[in-house]
Amino acid sequence: MPDLAELRAAYELAKSQCGADWKSDAAANAIFAFATMSVRFLRTDCSPIDLVSRVPGKQYVSFTRKGVVARPANRALFVKDERRLAKMWSALRKGKIDRDSFAQVSYTIALAPCLVLELFDRGNKKAPATYFECFIGHLFASSFGVNPQKRAVLPVQGRSVQMTMDFLFDLGKGRYSLHLAVKMSTRERVVQAWAHQRLLDAAYGADRYKGIMVLFSETKLDSRSREVIEICVPDQWLAYQSLLAKMDRIYYFDTPYRYQQLTEQFPDVIRIKPFGEFFSEKETVALR
Amino acid sequence: MPDLAELRAAYELAKSQCGADWKSDAAANAIFAFATMSVRFLRTDCSPIDLVSRVPGKQYVSFTRKGVVARPANRALFVKDERRLAKMWSALRKGKIDRDSFAQVSYTIALAPCLVLELFDRGNKKAPATYFECFIGHLFASSFGVNPQKRAVLPVQGRSVQMTMDFLFDLGKGRYSLHLAVKMSTRERVVQAWAHQRLLDAAYGADRYKGIMVLFSETKLDSRSREVIEICVPDQWLAYQSLLAKMDRIYYFDTPYRYQQLTEQFPDVIRIKPFGEFFSEKETVALR
Repeated sequence: MPDLAELRAAYELAKSQCGADWKSDAAANAIFAFATMSVRFLRTDCSPIDLVSRVPGKQYVSFTRKGVVARPANRALFVKDERRLAKMWSALRKGKIDRDSFAQVSYTIALAPCLVLELFDRGNKKAPATYFECFIGHLFASSFGVNPQKRAVLPVQGRSVQMTMDFLFDLGKGRYSLHLAVKMSTRERVVQAWAHQRLLDAAYGADRYKGIMVLFSETKLDSRSREVIEICVPDQWLAYQSLLAKMDRIYYFDTPYRYQQLTEQFPDVIRIKPFGEFFSEKETVALR
Repeated sequence: MPDLAELRAAYELAKSQCGADWKSDAAANAIFAFATMSVRFLRTDCSPIDLVSRVPGKQYVSFTRKGVVARPANRALFVKDERRLAKMWSALRKGKIDRDSFAQVSYTIALAPCLVLELFDRGNKKAPATYFECFIGHLFASSFGVNPQKRAVLPVQGRSVQMTMDFLFDLGKGRYSLHLAVKMSTRERVVQAWAHQRLLDAAYGADRYKGIMVLFSETKLDSRSREVIEICVPDQWLAYQSLLAKMDRIYYFDTPYRYQQLTEQFPDVIRIKPFGEFFSEKETVALR
């Protein structure tokens, strides 16, 4: 079974391979190696626990080790078996995977390393966020065959102002550029994604960058009662989307119930959908 | 000399009096009592230390107690003598104070309680921020004779969406309403203030709410070398101000050197100025 040093090395390798070439096979392999090592570690060194779901239609489990309980995992999406995960990953890499399998394998590869990082160091919020950003950056880069930039250049008052954003993809002639914002969960800081989109729209016109957000979930675990709830602010999102800037698509690995309802109520204003759908629509996302 | 329980009670009283009536004499008295108790505590129970300023033209000191060093205080602005502070406060309350004295008394009343809260509990960032917000909310409310709201109501897609902002002042006919954003220092989260202003402008037209920011400082203390620097991102601010929304005035208790330069370079785009000036121009801030 993997020890802390091995897991840490796997994390560092995934980061550095993405830094070197997001779209590369080396990045894919490093991410999958870290994820599969994490799934094995959760199975062999941690204890599964059932959580009490207060979210309609969803069941959650988690893992515990030395008194620490990791964040919730959606039972229908999390794959505990490394061999099954390996088969699905191989299908994904070949582009021959159905939507449900894509949803499961991407959910598990996104989450398993975060669970492990959390069990080793509960206070370190940055490492899970960094890994998640690596995985999403890689998925988009390999899907489009283009590496992202992290800096926008904005023409402002005769200056070229550089501003760090999550990811910008220039997909070439005939396609939109993509502004991709990535977060494990939102809460207060999410307004930044809409503000960045607004900056890009104001600088380059609303027709240049399509805004896409990829978010993991909005679950919150009460550590005493072990109840899982989802924290959502649908009214705020409606205001951001209507008054600040328009995000073209908002993908969730585990779509919150209330955001699904919001999308059904206002289909022309906001599109919040399972990340699983990215796989089948990725060809059309950037089409003009 | 005051003990922890007394200081905590003074903090709670300042909070609750502001909550009950921001503009009241009771709020003013509670704030001043907490501040003067803090200044006394710093003098009697803590040791002053000199810091190494790397900021052109400014000197910084701080206080230490039980191995904890509090944030930097600008030597030219911090008043250590309670009797002098009391005289200045009395002049301020009567509206008969010169600009330099206003700058000193407001700087000291804003900072002293934060230093004390920090020396007691370094990890608690929220209490200093809450107190600072109380003080600024009170100063604006008593200056205009109007209590603020904390919630904007935005008409969005046929709904009335409520959104929490720092402060909104409705000053009545013939005057602008004020959107007042308050922060001890900025860093990442400041984009929220511009985003809120943009939401208000988009919902009500750019002519309804004047955006005002009140910030304390951007100093950063290196705890080992005891060097003080200022962290500024002038290019980002220029982009926010040009592409996101326009803040009418940005006040600092301790104006960062580089933001002063930015204002001199782009006087038509951004106005960053010492909070001391608020006292002499408050009558005109909201005039149409």
